[in-house]
Amino acid sequence: MRARAYAPAHITGFFEICEHSDQRQMGSRGCGFTLQAGVTTEVSIEEGEGISVIINGTKTDAPTTRSVVRRLASEYFVEVRSRIDVPIGCGFGASGAGALSTALALSNALSLDLSYNGAAGVAHVAEVENKTGLGDVIAQTHGGMVIRRKPGAPGIGEVDRIPVSDVEVNHVVLGEISTKDVLEDEKVRGCINRAGRTALNGLLKRPTIQNFMQLSNQFAIDTGLMSDAVANIIESVKSAGGTASMAMLGEVVFAIGGYDSLKDFGPVRTYKISHDGARLL
Amino acid sequence: MRARAYAPAHITGFFEICEHSDQRQMGSRGCGFTLQAGVTTEVSIEEGEGISVIINGTKTDAPTTRSVVRRLASEYFVEVRSRIDVPIGCGFGASGAGALSTALALSNALSLDLSYNGAAGVAHVAEVENKTGLGDVIAQTHGGMVIRRKPGAPGIGEVDRIPVSDVEVNHVVLGEISTKDVLEDEKVRGCINRAGRTALNGLLKRPTIQNFMQLSNQFAIDTGLMSDAVANIIESVKSAGGTASMAMLGEVVFAIGGYDSLKDFGPVRTYKISHDGARLL
Repeated sequence: MRARAYAPAHITGFFEICEHSDQRQMGSRGCGFTLQAGVTTEVSIEEGEGISVIINGTKTDAPTTRSVVRRLASEYFVEVRSRIDVPIGCGFGASGAGALSTALALSNALSLDLSYNGAAGVAHVAEVENKTGLGDVIAQTHGGMVIRRKPGAPGIGEVDRIPVSDVEVNHVVLGEISTKDVLEDEKVRGCINRAGRTALNGLLKRPTIQNFMQLSNQFAIDTGLMSDAVANIIESVKSAGGTASMAMLGEVVFAIGGYDSLKDFGPVRTYKISHDGARLL
Repeated sequence: MRARAYAPAHITGFFEICEHSDQRQMGSRGCGFTLQAGVTTEVSIEEGEGISVIINGTKTDAPTTRSVVRRLASEYFVEVRSRIDVPIGCGFGASGAGALSTALALSNALSLDLSYNGAAGVAHVAEVENKTGLGDVIAQTHGGMVIRRKPGAPGIGEVDRIPVSDVEVNHVVLGEISTKDVLEDEKVRGCINRAGRTALNGLLKRPTIQNFMQLSNQFAIDTGLMSDAVANIIESVKSAGGTASMAMLGEVVFAIGGYDSLKDFGPVRTYKISHDGARLL
């Protein structure tokens, strides 16, 4: 039994951590955007037991995707093959997209007949459990420029979206940040929650992409998550008339405009914001 | 000032009318799917007063779209030009798609900075007010195979979706049905609500496209909305190994498979189910 599914990458600009003892209700509030790039997953299911996860041709640990497989297909041998066309571990929501595409594909291959919210709920819980993300899955389920008004898994959390046309976003990747390390640091969490709440309140008053870029930038500064190197690149984009901020959580600058100034700092990847979310292939 | 937006067509398979004194909370529960075809709207705004709606090149009354313009741009002269590439008045949700694309375009052109839910809320209320639809706008805002679990405008109503890949749906159009006439007939409403509730309960237990097709068919029979001509076509598709039902509300058969048997009854239009909803262009 085989099936294929796709989930878009997702970049968060700012967020607030919302604790809850129920993992489906735990999550984040905030805002980000999905990309016309992400994770394509094929699952193959055979008699037996065990899990093999192969990402871009290499056997990988992928704990979040493994959690999904254990929940949905523990009585089989499952091979998960994902092609990820965004950087991994850099705030592009690759773990959420891997988990979500795996959940959708497994439900289809095994005729589990899960709805979107059903499949995405499993992926969301896997992310929370493994501390790899809090709000990527609900955004990746919907697609677009998603405002997470209330935290939680799809069907529990509440979203709105900012209307955008085909916007191109430029990215420069400096390195990884461990989501787990940040989520486990008590002091950083406090800063994130204060700044995240302020940013979301500001965005709800004026839900535009320009306001999102500005509030994200302020959030990255106020939380102390912005490194000097990132600040330097953002400044350079601004000088060139663009707007930029930092992906949460990755040592990554995303920018609207400012392509030429970004080139000085490394290879520039350009993706369009996607309008649609995860789907079966 | 000009702006353009698109909203997909939407076909409902079954529904339940949910009354409420607040038009944003009034709506329907049920299930349907959006198509990779729909309404593209350009709005042009000038000094002055008045509304001109031009659909496929012809000046048209379009009361639902006019309601949207009155709400968002009453102090201007507004020209709305829509290209509708599905049949009008036949259960393809053209009025909802026209209203939704107009609301998104107006918000953008006038920098009203409405979110998706904000713009779609205006379109939903316009539909309810004019009795042209109850659940199309929320489905068209999300896109895909949308289960409307709780009624209302986007942000108030609650949806889930059935995961589907690129499914082709074949259509034969026999004629129009007035949504207003059906919504105003007390006796028909009773039948719709009983049958709609049963169908939705059945779908939530097993949210698959096959189950949706079957439950829609049963709904069309139980409500008495299915004409002999439609029943005849559906039977013919079934004999050929396909599944089919009737669009709510139009004298229209939609079918998965059965293309050759449909051809005997008129020109067949084939659209894919869309994964994405309305958007700015």
